[in-house]
Amino acid sequence: MGKNLTKREVDYSKWYNELVVKADLAENSAVRGCMVIKPYGYAIWEKMQAELDRMFKETGHENAYFPLFVPKSLFEAEEKNAEGFAKECAVVTHYRLQNDPDNEGKLRVDPAAKLEEELVVRPTSEAIIWNTFKGWVQSYRDLPLLINQWANVVRWEMRTRLFLRTAEFLWQEGHTAHATKKEALTEALQMQKVYAEFAENFMAMPVIKGAKSESERFAGADETYTIEALMQDGKALQAGTSHFLGQNFAKAFDVKYTSKEGKQEYVWATSWGVSTRLIGGLIMTHSDDFGLVLPPKLAPIQVVIVPIYKGDEQLAAISEKVDVFVKELRAKGISVKFDTRDTYRPGAKFAEYELKGVPVRIAFGKRDLENNTVEIARRDTLEKQTVAQDNVVEFVSNLLEEIQENLFNRAITYREEHTTEVDTFEEFKDAIENKGGFVSAHWDGTIETEDKIKELTKATIRCIPLENKFEDGKCVFTGAPSKKRVLFAKSY
Amino acid sequence: MGKNLTKREVDYSKWYNELVVKADLAENSAVRGCMVIKPYGYAIWEKMQAELDRMFKETGHENAYFPLFVPKSLFEAEEKNAEGFAKECAVVTHYRLQNDPDNEGKLRVDPAAKLEEELVVRPTSEAIIWNTFKGWVQSYRDLPLLINQWANVVRWEMRTRLFLRTAEFLWQEGHTAHATKKEALTEALQMQKVYAEFAENFMAMPVIKGAKSESERFAGADETYTIEALMQDGKALQAGTSHFLGQNFAKAFDVKYTSKEGKQEYVWATSWGVSTRLIGGLIMTHSDDFGLVLPPKLAPIQVVIVPIYKGDEQLAAISEKVDVFVKELRAKGISVKFDTRDTYRPGAKFAEYELKGVPVRIAFGKRDLENNTVEIARRDTLEKQTVAQDNVVEFVSNLLEEIQENLFNRAITYREEHTTEVDTFEEFKDAIENKGGFVSAHWDGTIETEDKIKELTKATIRCIPLENKFEDGKCVFTGAPSKKRVLFAKSY
Repeated sequence: MGKNLTKREVDYSKWYNELVVKADLAENSAVRGCMVIKPYGYAIWEKMQAELDRMFKETGHENAYFPLFVPKSLFEAEEKNAEGFAKECAVVTHYRLQNDPDNEGKLRVDPAAKLEEELVVRPTSEAIIWNTFKGWVQSYRDLPLLINQWANVVRWEMRTRLFLRTAEFLWQEGHTAHATKKEALTEALQMQKVYAEFAENFMAMPVIKGAKSESERFAGADETYTIEALMQDGKALQAGTSHFLGQNFAKAFDVKYTSKEGKQEYVWATSWGVSTRLIGGLIMTHSDDFGLVLPPKLAPIQVVIVPIYKGDEQLAAISEKVDVFVKELRAKGISVKFDTRDTYRPGAKFAEYELKGVPVRIAFGKRDLENNTVEIARRDTLEKQTVAQDNVVEFVSNLLEEIQENLFNRAITYREEHTTEVDTFEEFKDAIENKGGFVSAHWDGTIETEDKIKELTKATIRCIPLENKFEDGKCVFTGAPSKKRVLFAKSY
Repeated sequence: MGKNLTKREVDYSKWYNELVVKADLAENSAVRGCMVIKPYGYAIWEKMQAELDRMFKETGHENAYFPLFVPKSLFEAEEKNAEGFAKECAVVTHYRLQNDPDNEGKLRVDPAAKLEEELVVRPTSEAIIWNTFKGWVQSYRDLPLLINQWANVVRWEMRTRLFLRTAEFLWQEGHTAHATKKEALTEALQMQKVYAEFAENFMAMPVIKGAKSESERFAGADETYTIEALMQDGKALQAGTSHFLGQNFAKAFDVKYTSKEGKQEYVWATSWGVSTRLIGGLIMTHSDDFGLVLPPKLAPIQVVIVPIYKGDEQLAAISEKVDVFVKELRAKGISVKFDTRDTYRPGAKFAEYELKGVPVRIAFGKRDLENNTVEIARRDTLEKQTVAQDNVVEFVSNLLEEIQENLFNRAITYREEHTTEVDTFEEFKDAIENKGGFVSAHWDGTIETEDKIKELTKATIRCIPLENKFEDGKCVFTGAPSKKRVLFAKSY
């Protein structure tokens, strides 16, 4: 019953690290900062991928694949982008190992196999993709170009945490080219909306849509749109970003098109991505001291059935009854596991599925055989209920929807309770330090003030919310005039 | 009509290279030997992935993800494996770039950011995975471990060709651990069978199942099982391999389990993979001088409809009729594109879809409006037929099945016509040089003879076919006794 799990209020960070490993989601590897995503964690990622991929295709995007490596000369072509990622690049310098003459049985880099030009392992693919787009775009007929890639990327981060920040991670990166600025802006905002819908409707994780302040923008972007979620410890998580890249990459890689009027114009660009970091957000939005809590729409196993029996005969009798509703549940597209392993006791199985966050657990014992009932437990509230076998299919279908909804509502309530509007810096500091969560405050729009606030409170501007109205106010730190509240928080 | 495509009989290799690029499947990138897989090519890969993934899951495998990098000390742990891949490894030596003081605006590797231990970009993942399996396997209860990974891998090949041999490629690699030798052997053979079924039933590409001779085995395997296909130019293509790894990796990484009897035992292993190379095989099995020919089961677009019209009114009238059967076709799971672009003429569209290998093309013109007909062309035979609109759905469904079958039969016929049984080395040389294809011959079982034959004829042993019966014979080269014919061919 998650009894070995550190309690959240004792040490949230420890709770998270333990949970990821104990729930069989991921583990650290022999490579510094790189994780192994275990089958159960990867199954969640596959469910995320399937939904996102469908949403990308429905909005007209096609998948493609570009090289893992970026030659240094391409990498440095867009200066701001290069500057932003140069400090954390894995670099391939050689293409061969040889026997080490000083160390029998060991290998060393073959000094004769030095690459003429170093290759950067992609931290993001704008450079290699825009160098390719150059060949794909000639005329307005070739636009828009709406491409997505599912890939691994590498950023040599110094402090890493499973899913949240790893040296290698899996993600998708959309890269689009458009004839006009307006179209590109519309695309960037559309994809932010797609991300928000995915987060809320599938992950049951409420998000704030906003724009990043200049200092938090993607390196090489003119505007970065973000979705920001609030974790249970009051820290914000940047869950997905969509960038309006202006003509920065088009100019760096000389990507022009001939307009209908026969003029040569630079194209306009966007890029957008979400990653395996989402799994970290999923965990920290819903899970509890007993283990993982998964929203039904992304749970690899939605319903688990645990038989409680003595002897093969009783198991056979239970199985016969169970098979009836398992078939019906599966026919409705619900994923069901009937756990008949005889190497574990029911109590151990209960603990395992609680830890792994399976939304619905059905226990079927001797008394249920006699009464034609089952016991159904929901993972989100841990409540149990006895249900007639005839009603299992309807009950479970409804319950899965209810759990999905309840998780979202619970998270919304938490966020509302942890969003504070403040008008003085005293209130600001108090909210950040003692309450946590989002703090909505006026800001004078300067990087200096942003930096100072960060220095004093560790809080950063998470976003300038799109839905915030204009209002006259004064910067919470400098008193200078401000037109719009922005959202601050400590963050992952 | 593919009129700019080099004819196969003029230069098969040139035909292939041109076709891959002109049909928008892939292109070379700025990184030596690495390709860009374009949306149309990637869509074929997605279809392949979906079927293979389903087949892997149906046989009990789960997906997971392991690091891109292998620390050198792990890489060299299994000696034969290390030796086999050391010569073609991309190696990461540094983790940061910095501004180049000698070259303003340029970057260089930061000499202070040298890794303590070099990282090999995975050419295959046995080493990193077996190092992980060590932590996953304790008892017989943990076995079998049935894992698959979809990933990119890098082998620094000197001569590369789009899809067939690229420095980076996409693949899946299965890695399994078993309690007994027998189970591991059964698994390796099962996955060879899965690959063969996929190749034949989905790619319509007949394959020979066999074992590799010692010199053609995977580095680190005790046995390599292969599926070998025959391309239209008479060369063989190794299309997928499944390896019985014995206890080699278990010993190198010290992976033991406690048996039911309480004894510590090394586990037994397999690994198996297919890659984007399959797309090369698909192309070279079916395509013709007019362009790509795709089997319906893997075609991203199965049916294309081209309207032939003058003015919006006629297009509207055609669209109304087309919409009826498009809906019905889609409801049957058939992917249909109705190409109403007004920037291209019907003739240009016909040529495009012919080049791209769309299995069925429906043309709908003014006369069809009057007669309630359409003209249906099949890509495999280029035959056309007039069909009543009411019969389109049934006709097309049947036609897609017929095309799938016809492509397979055509390929089987080609292979039969290009498989020669020989008993003398004169016959052998004649068959290899003048006829091409598979040559079935007795071989004395020695590496020396294999090498000599390769030196003299460029033909290698593609496999020792599983279905070949034992028979007394004499080695075609040395005359030494042999018990079984093996299959030789020139190969990709």
